[in-house]
Amino acid sequence: MPDKVIPDIVVGRLPIYLRALQRMLAENRHVTSSQELGERLGISAAQIRKDLSQFGEFGKQGTGYSIDYLAEQIRQILHIDRVWDIAVVGAGDIGSAVARYQGFANRGMQVAMIFDNDPAKIGTQVGSFTVQDTADLESTIKRAGIKVAMIATPSEKAQEVSDQLIAAGVKAILNYAPINLNVTEDVRVQYIDPVIHLQRMTYYL
Amino acid sequence: MPDKVIPDIVVGRLPIYLRALQRMLAENRHVTSSQELGERLGISAAQIRKDLSQFGEFGKQGTGYSIDYLAEQIRQILHIDRVWDIAVVGAGDIGSAVARYQGFANRGMQVAMIFDNDPAKIGTQVGSFTVQDTADLESTIKRAGIKVAMIATPSEKAQEVSDQLIAAGVKAILNYAPINLNVTEDVRVQYIDPVIHLQRMTYYL
Repeated sequence: MPDKVIPDIVVGRLPIYLRALQRMLAENRHVTSSQELGERLGISAAQIRKDLSQFGEFGKQGTGYSIDYLAEQIRQILHIDRVWDIAVVGAGDIGSAVARYQGFANRGMQVAMIFDNDPAKIGTQVGSFTVQDTADLESTIKRAGIKVAMIATPSEKAQEVSDQLIAAGVKAILNYAPINLNVTEDVRVQYIDPVIHLQRMTYYL
Repeated sequence: MPDKVIPDIVVGRLPIYLRALQRMLAENRHVTSSQELGERLGISAAQIRKDLSQFGEFGKQGTGYSIDYLAEQIRQILHIDRVWDIAVVGAGDIGSAVARYQGFANRGMQVAMIFDNDPAKIGTQVGSFTVQDTADLESTIKRAGIKVAMIATPSEKAQEVSDQLIAAGVKAILNYAPINLNVTEDVRVQYIDPVIHLQRMTYYL
């Protein structure tokens, strides 16, 4: 692949396509079409073909896509033909739910550790993890070479934790705290805030 | 406001602006500019001005925006100058975390009830709610006139629950199950799947 810059919005749809393909595989399906994928996802077939064509030639006119092959190619493109260890910071309700979440399996991610600064939580079990002290976050993450983290702390703590994560070498942060983070240019941040999603829908009600 | 159709992507940014404005209010700030908002959010000042201008004239050249006024206007636009009751379906880790989540306050939303189909969970307490039987979902939601719901069930159950919610009159669904839902045209769906967000970032690693 040459150094063509792919728009973020196109990259952003690839995981959606992959999830649908993996679902089809689970249904024992092996061939699909941009039409079928589009119907499942509410995205036009033309858009799907155009998105995929940015990365190469994955199907033949008339015969459709091999689901196994296309899924494998998308995994390679997204760099999830490996498993990324994730550090979770914050062992409250959301951090704990994420640490116990079964939905990471086979999707290129696994929670590897969880931190909290509350002495009452440090040392307790969350799923299969022992909660570690946030004071050790930087050295522990650096030693483990972890590049991906999730922040599930209160808003007031999120920027400080983000700074620590970046100092430890983290390059991708999924932030559950309802606050925008200031990060260095080489770091990616994505946000999950259920209220934002809900407010996007009440506009139409 | 005439019946101008505002692009979804513009509507989608309004909650982000509102969250930043509310944060400024919490910091006892009362005037801001598109420049400052843009710096906080990593969005260009021009984009913010253009987005807001779709809905009216909210600031004066040179004097900036009254934060209180702009926040109130956005709340009206998003129809969150009221509080929407939310039904949560699924009292597992994620449903329970959402039902206990403190982040809805002052943002136009409140969880009103939670359902599960597991006899071991029905009747137990989750935060301030007693888990109700999913068998009663349709009648209970219809009676309460609830229009907004969250699905936090396993993937295999999500479509069935979605159908029940829509039959009960729900028009906006936030789906935590990692599967695309088929819904009628008058229903909005938003998705929260942490793996999708993580995969959008590993592309760049």
